[in-house]
Amino acid sequence: MITWNNLDTIPAYQELQKGKTVHLAEAMTGEKGAERVRKYSVPMAAGLVYNYAAKQVDDEILKSLAKLAEETQLIEKFQALYNGEVINTGEKRKVLHHMTRGQLGEAVVADGVDKRSFYAEQQKKIAELAEKVHSGQITNAAGEKFTTVVQIGIGGSDLGPRAMYLALENWAKANNTFKMEARFISNVDPDDAAAVLNTIDVEHSIFVLVSKSGTTLETLTNESFVKDALKNAGLDASRHMIAVTSETSPLAKSDDYLAAFFMDDYIGGRFSSTSGVGGAVLSLAFGPEVFARFLDGAAEEDRLAAKKDIFANPAMLDALIGVYERNILGYQNTAVLPYSQALSRFPAHLQQLDMESNGKSVNRFGEPVNYVTGPVIFGEPGTNGQHSFYQLLHQGTDVIPLQFVGFRNNQMGRDVVIQDSTSQQKLCANVAAQIVAFACGKADEDRNKNFQGGRPSSIITGDCLTPEALGALLSHFENKVMFQGFVWNINSFDQEGVQLGKVLAKKVLAHDTEGALKAYSDLLNI
Amino acid sequence: MITWNNLDTIPAYQELQKGKTVHLAEAMTGEKGAERVRKYSVPMAAGLVYNYAAKQVDDEILKSLAKLAEETQLIEKFQALYNGEVINTGEKRKVLHHMTRGQLGEAVVADGVDKRSFYAEQQKKIAELAEKVHSGQITNAAGEKFTTVVQIGIGGSDLGPRAMYLALENWAKANNTFKMEARFISNVDPDDAAAVLNTIDVEHSIFVLVSKSGTTLETLTNESFVKDALKNAGLDASRHMIAVTSETSPLAKSDDYLAAFFMDDYIGGRFSSTSGVGGAVLSLAFGPEVFARFLDGAAEEDRLAAKKDIFANPAMLDALIGVYERNILGYQNTAVLPYSQALSRFPAHLQQLDMESNGKSVNRFGEPVNYVTGPVIFGEPGTNGQHSFYQLLHQGTDVIPLQFVGFRNNQMGRDVVIQDSTSQQKLCANVAAQIVAFACGKADEDRNKNFQGGRPSSIITGDCLTPEALGALLSHFENKVMFQGFVWNINSFDQEGVQLGKVLAKKVLAHDTEGALKAYSDLLNI
Repeated sequence: MITWNNLDTIPAYQELQKGKTVHLAEAMTGEKGAERVRKYSVPMAAGLVYNYAAKQVDDEILKSLAKLAEETQLIEKFQALYNGEVINTGEKRKVLHHMTRGQLGEAVVADGVDKRSFYAEQQKKIAELAEKVHSGQITNAAGEKFTTVVQIGIGGSDLGPRAMYLALENWAKANNTFKMEARFISNVDPDDAAAVLNTIDVEHSIFVLVSKSGTTLETLTNESFVKDALKNAGLDASRHMIAVTSETSPLAKSDDYLAAFFMDDYIGGRFSSTSGVGGAVLSLAFGPEVFARFLDGAAEEDRLAAKKDIFANPAMLDALIGVYERNILGYQNTAVLPYSQALSRFPAHLQQLDMESNGKSVNRFGEPVNYVTGPVIFGEPGTNGQHSFYQLLHQGTDVIPLQFVGFRNNQMGRDVVIQDSTSQQKLCANVAAQIVAFACGKADEDRNKNFQGGRPSSIITGDCLTPEALGALLSHFENKVMFQGFVWNINSFDQEGVQLGKVLAKKVLAHDTEGALKAYSDLLNI
Repeated sequence: MITWNNLDTIPAYQELQKGKTVHLAEAMTGEKGAERVRKYSVPMAAGLVYNYAAKQVDDEILKSLAKLAEETQLIEKFQALYNGEVINTGEKRKVLHHMTRGQLGEAVVADGVDKRSFYAEQQKKIAELAEKVHSGQITNAAGEKFTTVVQIGIGGSDLGPRAMYLALENWAKANNTFKMEARFISNVDPDDAAAVLNTIDVEHSIFVLVSKSGTTLETLTNESFVKDALKNAGLDASRHMIAVTSETSPLAKSDDYLAAFFMDDYIGGRFSSTSGVGGAVLSLAFGPEVFARFLDGAAEEDRLAAKKDIFANPAMLDALIGVYERNILGYQNTAVLPYSQALSRFPAHLQQLDMESNGKSVNRFGEPVNYVTGPVIFGEPGTNGQHSFYQLLHQGTDVIPLQFVGFRNNQMGRDVVIQDSTSQQKLCANVAAQIVAFACGKADEDRNKNFQGGRPSSIITGDCLTPEALGALLSHFENKVMFQGFVWNINSFDQEGVQLGKVLAKKVLAHDTEGALKAYSDLLNI
């Protein structure tokens, strides 16, 4: 029997509030620090490891966090979710994105079909289309192969797929699975579409229009922009466009598209990278096999997230430590710092995933909560960030918890030795050094050069950023966000906070304005 | 006579702490809201306007902020800075980046030369080189024109120039001043350089190596990477590379470069976009005239920053409101939200500019301060952000102050009408709507759809993102950060917080490790 209770009513939480905190700099110094690094490590899928030695926790706090997991019934709630209960209560929807990559529990039937079969069928259809495009069975009107795929979508239809594409682009090139370049158009700013169209060969481009509802204003506008460009080039737009949408959307049955692939209301935009939303563009860019490997990594990680033991469940453990940092230690932000240029836009995806899911002030019953919920997420790849905002992370007046990601090998296999080490060794040395610098600090009589330490971090490491590793990484954070939403007793799967702006923007466009809105409209000359 | 005092000793600050706060939703509702929009507006350079109607201030608070500006002697301190006093006391250096675009006060002589003449001379030399490259007087060994410029640099030698390049790339294309494509290599991750080299034509590429000290490890490593690639292509590297460095650096007199341009210790990396660091790549990409126009916009905005009246000095006013939000209202972050795809990396530049300058815990005398300093800065372009992290901004448990930027016209002049409005109109309607939605909110009986409002923002608007407007925008934020550093009594011009990580990374590479550092090195297999 599942009960949904606010965090501040949970005994383990009250225990944590009274408990002693860890002096991180002390804990991480000397041989006991080394022991923590060896001990506070959990295997993930695809050979990755989640290491939390430099987090501000100890065995006692971890015991309370395990109790918190039990008392908030995190595993039972996840089971309910993947077995098809209506977890997105605000919108009265099931939450089924895990099913795009596997089946963790019972068969779930909705809209009269088995949903796992439905998602697998869509993936298969996408794979078939991609293979036809690659083999030249599907071509432009002149019978020539397509060389570029352009995704038109915004939010979850853009950030996740774009981050995943960038993460695997160079890996695919180095591993001879690269099929075609992908580009992305998202912003309603007309310069976005114009700039992309200026730099591609439209005659050899295939466009993927992604909108679940088929009514997203930015996406329809950009579609129109693209159709104009195709028409001006004397091309038949319907031979250049495919749609990823829901079966009930106006796009689903239109003749304007070469093909349409389906998603549904049980997959939120920010959780849709493993559905057709990511599947079409990634399968076209890298081949369906690569996309399938990405799904396998995510599925393997999902299975770990179903485990009851917090020390075998890295997503749940990470989630609980995050709640501890947010609600007990009072830290407001989390910085995501991948030491991998391929993950340059991964922080932007996590920013949506986390902040849109858990940036809520009411619980799942619509009652205001008396505690803070989702943190602000930001980040850039290392070592770039070291030469940018790390100053504040090291010596600023607020403590910002850090999430590092790093790989032992690079993707492209090219490297250079300078001052007796390769670039890859320098990259890894830097991330190791940063973790210790943040945790331990270093006393200096010159206070300007003094490092207090005590700044917590964790790291996910692995051999190389492969499709499986990327899938595991994505699943880890999706499940982390889900577990945190359960702990905070909020609905992580709706986004009512984006509605008011839409309503007011429509008023402006209809010149139905008064007061400040009228004055701002005048200022912007709309 | 200037005195440097901590913020908590300033009478106006103590007054502000005791003062009443503004109920923003009330203040912005109805005709009084419209009146605020009209009244709380300050002209900037290049036709821009800084509007702060939706900030949590009123006439009384503004009066106290004006008093705070006087009591902390902001204008006198800025005068001291531009007249050449050693304001960067930690490193015992003058701070002269304003002089790269004009002379606000007295002549400043350092290292035996007049510094304004020195910077102007470097700019002239860069302009001459760029013109020779464009006209074909300087070519590759085969006598062919260069078509691509690649900047090799990290931190301030990367983020600012990259953001400025992206900001003007499409403007230059639409205005027929686009000369050559620019690319950037920054990260020590070898995949960064390899990926860029994979997608350019090295034979027709000119590389700009940027390192003030000539010893930045990432940059030297990437230089070596590039030299290998040139050598492998049978090319003479010295015909393809120019350097931007200090006169005392090992790069300055090397035969390895076609030409070397100089900066000096009085210009911090994050303030160097208007020096040769930005000048070389931007002059090559867009022509020296465009770079000169960018400098003119910055110089015009600098002159406003020298004005004593806070209502004629948008940077100072913005700075003071930011301090009020940080220290009185207790807000920890600021989101930068440009409604312009061209400004996609502008927030990343501001993130460095602000967080590296003001993420400090000790005052300029090395004594710990008892108040918070620099905020966390993050952001993405709108409307993209609306479909991502705005949920938290609207309904999260923390208030995040917002900095909008928006233009009445797009850069490329291509647009499309959908549902009776252009994309540009939709873009502007959205930013106007967001400001009001954040400020005023909207009551709803369904608490999940309730918007509390009271979330403060300001906006900088203008006609179009031209080179002058970009210069003004850059100067605004540079000066804002400087003024805030003065208010907090910290040194905004050093960055000691980045040193410890460098020292520890060297230890790792020398295998001189123990404790946690050894254990992390093992985990990462270094």
